[in-house]
Amino acid sequence: MEVGYGSGDKTGFFTQGRRSLKAFTVQFKVKTVELARNIKKLGQDDPRRVIHSLKVGLALTLVSMFYYCQPLYSNFDETAIWAIMTVVVVFEFSVGATLGKGLNRGMATLMAGGLGLGAHHLANLSGHIGEPILLGFFVFLQATISTFLRFFPKIKSRYDYGMLIFILTFSLISVSGYRDDEILEFAHKRLSTISIGGSACVIISTVVCPVWAGEDLHNLIALNIEKLGNFLEGFGDEYFKRTGGEESKDDKKFLEGYKSVLNSKNSEESLANFAAWEPGHGRFPFRHPWKLYLKVGTLARECAYRIEALNGCLNADIQASSEVGSIIQEACTNLSIESGKALKELALAIKIMVQPSSADSHIENAKSAAKNLKSLLKSGIWEDIDLLKVIPGVTVASILIDVVTCTEKIAESIHELASKAQFKSVEPTLSTEKLHSGQIQSVKSAQMVNCSHVVINVGESTLPSPPSESSSAPNASKQRMEV
Amino acid sequence: MEVGYGSGDKTGFFTQGRRSLKAFTVQFKVKTVELARNIKKLGQDDPRRVIHSLKVGLALTLVSMFYYCQPLYSNFDETAIWAIMTVVVVFEFSVGATLGKGLNRGMATLMAGGLGLGAHHLANLSGHIGEPILLGFFVFLQATISTFLRFFPKIKSRYDYGMLIFILTFSLISVSGYRDDEILEFAHKRLSTISIGGSACVIISTVVCPVWAGEDLHNLIALNIEKLGNFLEGFGDEYFKRTGGEESKDDKKFLEGYKSVLNSKNSEESLANFAAWEPGHGRFPFRHPWKLYLKVGTLARECAYRIEALNGCLNADIQASSEVGSIIQEACTNLSIESGKALKELALAIKIMVQPSSADSHIENAKSAAKNLKSLLKSGIWEDIDLLKVIPGVTVASILIDVVTCTEKIAESIHELASKAQFKSVEPTLSTEKLHSGQIQSVKSAQMVNCSHVVINVGESTLPSPPSESSSAPNASKQRMEV
Repeated sequence: MEVGYGSGDKTGFFTQGRRSLKAFTVQFKVKTVELARNIKKLGQDDPRRVIHSLKVGLALTLVSMFYYCQPLYSNFDETAIWAIMTVVVVFEFSVGATLGKGLNRGMATLMAGGLGLGAHHLANLSGHIGEPILLGFFVFLQATISTFLRFFPKIKSRYDYGMLIFILTFSLISVSGYRDDEILEFAHKRLSTISIGGSACVIISTVVCPVWAGEDLHNLIALNIEKLGNFLEGFGDEYFKRTGGEESKDDKKFLEGYKSVLNSKNSEESLANFAAWEPGHGRFPFRHPWKLYLKVGTLARECAYRIEALNGCLNADIQASSEVGSIIQEACTNLSIESGKALKELALAIKIMVQPSSADSHIENAKSAAKNLKSLLKSGIWEDIDLLKVIPGVTVASILIDVVTCTEKIAESIHELASKAQFKSVEPTLSTEKLHSGQIQSVKSAQMVNCSHVVINVGESTLPSPPSESSSAPNASKQRMEV
Repeated sequence: MEVGYGSGDKTGFFTQGRRSLKAFTVQFKVKTVELARNIKKLGQDDPRRVIHSLKVGLALTLVSMFYYCQPLYSNFDETAIWAIMTVVVVFEFSVGATLGKGLNRGMATLMAGGLGLGAHHLANLSGHIGEPILLGFFVFLQATISTFLRFFPKIKSRYDYGMLIFILTFSLISVSGYRDDEILEFAHKRLSTISIGGSACVIISTVVCPVWAGEDLHNLIALNIEKLGNFLEGFGDEYFKRTGGEESKDDKKFLEGYKSVLNSKNSEESLANFAAWEPGHGRFPFRHPWKLYLKVGTLARECAYRIEALNGCLNADIQASSEVGSIIQEACTNLSIESGKALKELALAIKIMVQPSSADSHIENAKSAAKNLKSLLKSGIWEDIDLLKVIPGVTVASILIDVVTCTEKIAESIHELASKAQFKSVEPTLSTEKLHSGQIQSVKSAQMVNCSHVVINVGESTLPSPPSESSSAPNASKQRMEV
């Protein structure tokens, strides 16, 4: 009995053990697969992340191999760690950030090194007992002042890292209890190893598949405006479908895209900061007007707030009655489509860096649609309808009219950007043709944007004939926006 | 003649020189005064900045004096710079940020040190030629993988600094071409100096006038909701004053306050991140539900988007006609004042950490005002009025009705926060009294909030009699909100 009991217990234990092991294996497998999927997604979302990681590995290996293979560097010995440290700390995702940090680190080390030497020299004069007291006082004073200066917004945004390194280097140099000639050597070694590390970062970051913060900012602004355009282009149809009680089954992603615009202020600002450090590259000369992008971004965000309100109307419990819907539908849909198209044209103009004149006609259309809408609202049609039924529709109409103003402002700021940044102007012959065919520009643009390096080549002579153009337009315009 | 000419020239030179010197002096004076004013303002805006700077100076001096005065530390020699470096890099404004960075640095150093030793040992086995190659490979591999992991949002938000230090320490330890026993000593020294520096930071940051990120988050959320409340409380009056053609001359700052709420997402998130590192302090126990603050913040931002739309109506070219204004004014003003009051009560409840039951009655009032407004809009008054004239007023009304929904959602989330965080409940006797006197709670709260350390003492028995209370209420409520 006892044995049987025991063996039964044992079997139970084993069964249970096997079960929990199995459960653990399954769970482990699930977790691993999930992790692998996450990693893959992270890499696929932006393959530059993988390249950046490889670049950091490369830079670090290079700097450390330097230190290994060359007996030349044996005299750096312990200070060679500064080179490694510099690479780890300075290497950032974009060229601008790396350059900014590298320059900050270099300049701060130089300045603080000089000051630190001075402080050390002064303290040396004050005798054995006075020296540590005076040095301590100097360290306290400069750390306090520098830390406080870091709170200045202007310094914080561009020189924060430099201030940190300034405090660090000053403390290191002035505190190190070396004799004067050794301290000079120390400062010299620190500066040269930092230069080696910094140069490795800057060179690898600039030469191997560079990621330019300026280009990212440029694309981000264009993408944000495009997202707003996508929403507006789809909004009219969607709203009146719901008003009519229909439930469309299409993908509604375009209605959510604008949400990221609401909170893009910080990333825009940091990108603009980094971009200011970058030299001329590709389509962007040195001193490209990056600040104007921030202006466009702010206006885009203001438009996004209006769109948030529109989205609220889309999901509200009370919808416009179909009676009201049928009256304002055409004007509202027109207005929304035209401002959407205008924004998308503006986004495209930024993307391929041409004058945004192609958007002007859409803006004019949107404005006349707004006029229509206003006169509709003014007309006598409404007398027999209950006001409460009218409200949702009227609210949408009024926000849409507001959106047109926003779109105009955005267009103005992009015109300013285009003229300051000397975007190319589209050839007049094409513009005239465009007025007839409507979509030539977009199709051509789509073809151009699809190339990995955008070539502005709008004036090509072998334009397909307008009819075939307009028939291929919808696809092209969809494709164009997925670039 | 020549002499005269020459002397004239000389006089001219001197005069000009004196003039430009004077201009320079004046300009220098102006710049200096401006700078001094900026510095003073920066300190006055948040005096904790000055204290923080002094704390950094103190920590740095202490660590460096340690190194000086104690011959005990002479064996740390060069590695003592790690202590200084740790202080400079780890000491952040808030306790949470400092603790987070310190723990990240400590843990990462420990783990990477262990791994680095292992890598070094492995490489050692592979002979003179294989060693640098294998080491280089290890460094490359771990730098690449760790850099890539830093892109994971979860890791980025909490362990980014740890990953950086992991890469750094691993590279340093595995690359350092020391003999095995020396490398152990190196790792040990690095760990102990970092501990000294880190402890100095954490202790000084926690003991000397600590700045708690959690408290900052708590206050920021309360302040943001209060700003929304301020706008709404003032909006009704302001709007209908403008509709009536009046230009009020009062200070309009309360109408601008909400703008900072639109872009507060990032600061809220980083504060919540830091707060998660903090131990229990003051009114906040360990594991205080910081994430719920983010939820409240998100809802507040959604309300702010509506308010942005209201502000747009306030500054629109077309205003509601006075005819329309007179019809909806009362309901709209009521609604806006009541939701404003509700929000301000909610903000106060967060601030002094009591159950936000005092806001419920205001929300009920706002809801009934919304009902009134709806029935007004439904009524037959409008038949004779041109719709276009009605639109601006109706838009405002419809957004306001939307705001009530937002306010309700905010209240719900704060109720959730209050129950999870176990905010004190207000004594029922007071609540009943409050229903009659209306403002007791606020006045008491104002008195409490005015103390530098808030003591929750709502149930005090020596309440002044209701009449005198209500007469002093307006001042008190104004004062309360300036805290």
